[in-house]
Amino acid sequence: MSLLAELIAALQALPSVGPKSAQRMVFHLLHGRRQAGFLIASKLESAMNQIGLCDQCNHFTEVALCSICANPARDQNLLCIVENSADLLAIEQSMHYQGRYFVLMGLVSPLNGIGPDDLNFDKLEDQIKTKAIKELILALSPSPEGETTVYFLKERLKAYDVHLSQLAQGIPSGGSLEFLDQNTINAALRNRAPLNA
Amino acid sequence: MSLLAELIAALQALPSVGPKSAQRMVFHLLHGRRQAGFLIASKLESAMNQIGLCDQCNHFTEVALCSICANPARDQNLLCIVENSADLLAIEQSMHYQGRYFVLMGLVSPLNGIGPDDLNFDKLEDQIKTKAIKELILALSPSPEGETTVYFLKERLKAYDVHLSQLAQGIPSGGSLEFLDQNTINAALRNRAPLNA
Repeated sequence: MSLLAELIAALQALPSVGPKSAQRMVFHLLHGRRQAGFLIASKLESAMNQIGLCDQCNHFTEVALCSICANPARDQNLLCIVENSADLLAIEQSMHYQGRYFVLMGLVSPLNGIGPDDLNFDKLEDQIKTKAIKELILALSPSPEGETTVYFLKERLKAYDVHLSQLAQGIPSGGSLEFLDQNTINAALRNRAPLNA
Repeated sequence: MSLLAELIAALQALPSVGPKSAQRMVFHLLHGRRQAGFLIASKLESAMNQIGLCDQCNHFTEVALCSICANPARDQNLLCIVENSADLLAIEQSMHYQGRYFVLMGLVSPLNGIGPDDLNFDKLEDQIKTKAIKELILALSPSPEGETTVYFLKERLKAYDVHLSQLAQGIPSGGSLEFLDQNTINAALRNRAPLNA
């Protein structure tokens, strides 16, 4: 196999990248964008070698404490529980949350054989004990798995004097009622906000 | 900037890869697919270093002669002229062409300041002179640039005793008449094939 074919094959390990788009990526780089190709190769190599999990929150980082946990300006008493690092970044990118995070690295999913013991509940409990956590925001998907996880978290955290909340459910910004699912519309009706309060 | 952020930024040099899909790629690899990540990094590094142009046909290759030019089983007298390596691979993948290729690396495009002298016509002419080329298939897009390039190629190659042909125009396989453009339908009518010949 030629090096070209090997690279095209290797790139197909990326999500949503098939033979045609892998090929297009390779030609794009070979046509006068080799520096960008070298940069991707070197950053990728370093990332695969060096990136691990934050000691405190499980977010991906190449150092012991991720930049969020290490930032003294973040509210140390507020902890947002997310399923994975992608969800963490989505909240970070909305640029209003000032607390810290805790990444569960999964959701309870009996159908997939993932029980509450397979998640990082112990590490979370340690944090609640050792840090003065006052509020936990459960920012999990409103899916059956997300709701099951919320149930187990509530059970587990009963013993602690910590305020639990979860993300509001309702119509997404820019959402068109016509195309929203029943559950979202029901939640939006149930949680309707007073206008003349 | 964290290594994670640097890698996400670097990946956006790839075509059609924005911040969200770059992020998804990185998390996909970090979640237990690090070997695939290392493989991409090493193949990419080698490719950027080693892949150049075939001495004979301009196709991308890491050796002097690409595997197609170096294959003695390919018809040495038949040359297919393509715009770029992606078009070459599209023809290869259709698995019926048995001749060799010549990659022009562009099309004549006066609007973009690319004249016939900017393409590899000299190298092509050398091949026609030195190899016993009997037929040239012009496999260029049926676009204004493709047609302009065909015009210049025809002028340039008048002096040589070589048969010129171009890809048939018509309805693509699986194409629905309803959604085809006027030019394609006109070409398909003009080039209609006799059924009872």
